Amino acid sequence: MTQPEFRRDPLHNTWVVFAPERQRRPQDFASAILQSGNLDPFAEGNERLTPPEVYAARKEKSKPNEPGWRVRVVPNRYPAMRVEGQLEAQPIGLYDRLTGIGAHEVIIETPDGAAALEELPVKAITEVLSSYRERIIDLDKDQRFQHIYIFKNVGPSAGASLSHAHSQLVALPLVPSFVEGKLNRAREHFILKQRSLFSDILHTERIDGSRLVAENDGYYLFCPFASRFPFELAIFPKRHHPDYTSCTPTELHDLAEVIRFALQRLNAVLEKPGYNLLLHTAPLRRPLTERFASTRYDYSWHVEIVPRFNALAGFEIGLGAYINTVYPEEAARFLRGEARA
Amino acid sequence: MTQPEFRRDPLHNTWVVFAPERQRRPQDFASAILQSGNLDPFAEGNERLTPPEVYAARKEKSKPNEPGWRVRVVPNRYPAMRVEGQLEAQPIGLYDRLTGIGAHEVIIETPDGAAALEELPVKAITEVLSSYRERIIDLDKDQRFQHIYIFKNVGPSAGASLSHAHSQLVALPLVPSFVEGKLNRAREHFILKQRSLFSDILHTERIDGSRLVAENDGYYLFCPFASRFPFELAIFPKRHHPDYTSCTPTELHDLAEVIRFALQRLNAVLEKPGYNLLLHTAPLRRPLTERFASTRYDYSWHVEIVPRFNALAGFEIGLGAYINTVYPEEAARFLRGEARA
Repeated sequence: MTQPEFRRDPLHNTWVVFAPERQRRPQDFASAILQSGNLDPFAEGNERLTPPEVYAARKEKSKPNEPGWRVRVVPNRYPAMRVEGQLEAQPIGLYDRLTGIGAHEVIIETPDGAAALEELPVKAITEVLSSYRERIIDLDKDQRFQHIYIFKNVGPSAGASLSHAHSQLVALPLVPSFVEGKLNRAREHFILKQRSLFSDILHTERIDGSRLVAENDGYYLFCPFASRFPFELAIFPKRHHPDYTSCTPTELHDLAEVIRFALQRLNAVLEKPGYNLLLHTAPLRRPLTERFASTRYDYSWHVEIVPRFNALAGFEIGLGAYINTVYPEEAARFLRGEARA
Repeated sequence: MTQPEFRRDPLHNTWVVFAPERQRRPQDFASAILQSGNLDPFAEGNERLTPPEVYAARKEKSKPNEPGWRVRVVPNRYPAMRVEGQLEAQPIGLYDRLTGIGAHEVIIETPDGAAALEELPVKAITEVLSSYRERIIDLDKDQRFQHIYIFKNVGPSAGASLSHAHSQLVALPLVPSFVEGKLNRAREHFILKQRSLFSDILHTERIDGSRLVAENDGYYLFCPFASRFPFELAIFPKRHHPDYTSCTPTELHDLAEVIRFALQRLNAVLEKPGYNLLLHTAPLRRPLTERFASTRYDYSWHVEIVPRFNALAGFEIGLGAYINTVYPEEAARFLRGEARA
């Protein structure tokens, strides 16, 4: 069994990707990790250490897979899923199985192996965010994919295995039940209230103010009411839209600005914590219901930034609930600069 | 805001316990940890370092909160929730809030600070499992509680903060949505099939055999079909029952035997991994529906053991899906001793 596959059992209803290529021997269970000796496979000049690029922002006249790039997107060398093959879904007794078809790409955010994302100029971060958009638009053409998700792991506490600034994209042949749950709750809210849940949350946060951290032309940055992690942050766009790909160049510039600000403030208050940055956009090709022609607008793309300190423990794993030691109102005061350690 | 409280937002529908007492200053965000210098607060002779015990298995004539115990249960010194106070539920704008009422106890599994649970004799482990049962029966009397959950964190990768063998009990004034999901799926299965989902899973595993690791008179030990973690294990009782408290002394003895075996096999194959042990029992006082007088029997108490290697990363946090590098059929072969590293 060396082929990747998706599995689900009827008790947990959680999709699991089995990706046996990501480890070799039992000792490797500890690490689904890229091993390249001391060479940084993402550094400029080491392009041959990665699979051929699928996208890059490059200097004029520079060639693919050679130096001269500013952002570079490559397939993950140790992918959890594979693009090649037939998508097949079968039951196995009580259980569900799907071939491990999918895309797993790495967005190398800068040629500089020492620079963190938030240390780049806003223009460079905008180019990273544009590359996300380009890759989603391209992968959306593959009819096998139902959902695309982009995330960034920084630091060992957040599951990062390489320090060179990068993010990851996965294109999945299914919509995970956790995402389906968010979509369903947003839809139920819309049906009940004829208002978007995202707009209502923003309205509540603006009226209350205690959890707001910042805003710019395009976005609000705030600590969510039920933050699961200390200093968790959410970025909601002011122009509500299900698809991240709808973003204009100006909106991507404004997003780069607010992400940069958020990460810099976390660094200042918490001394460079590990974190995950999560980009949620609506599943691909969702059917519009008859009742609400505009039904997709019940959902909005959004960004979450979750600092990671402690390992998730038995409480979180078994209950799906969280213990958080910092109220979001207190975190927001620190992040706004009104309180100091 | 130093009072603990539960919060839920309508997008994630996840309950979060805010427990500000578990940290003091921003630097402590990194650790919701017991700090007691070099003293082991759980060692025999150090009883004064914990709150007064609520239960103990003791030598005859030994006194509470003095040496002479084999298992000792005390309130958590840094509780996520508090037993004192009124349970109050309110909306806050769009959001939900509940006062942080609950019990948070520590089960000290042995007076010996150097012994791991699986190094104890079966009889001693049985006494630990009996103490779980006694505490659930006692806390069930408090009408404010809706759900009791017991878990064990071993090793830093699993969120443990103290090495002395212990487990934790939480009694909650709510049923987390993750648990509600499992109950609902089990109920739907029962309504559709007139059979328990737990029995059907066991039937499937027995027929297939490839994921079975062991059985004894009372239990099956197996690697679940959609294991979220490498070498994840499930223990299902042969006598299906929603309530752990229904266990007889013989059943607890058999459970001790299978837990001991499972942990010893994990140690042998994986060199003492960090892990969580999770004890799931049905929520307290669940109403019986009119349609199915026996409806609670659609669910069964069960145990999960999840070894923990990598930190959960952006993939897991944002999607609620998992990447696992080891198929359960392969893990089971190693745990049965048929394959070697």
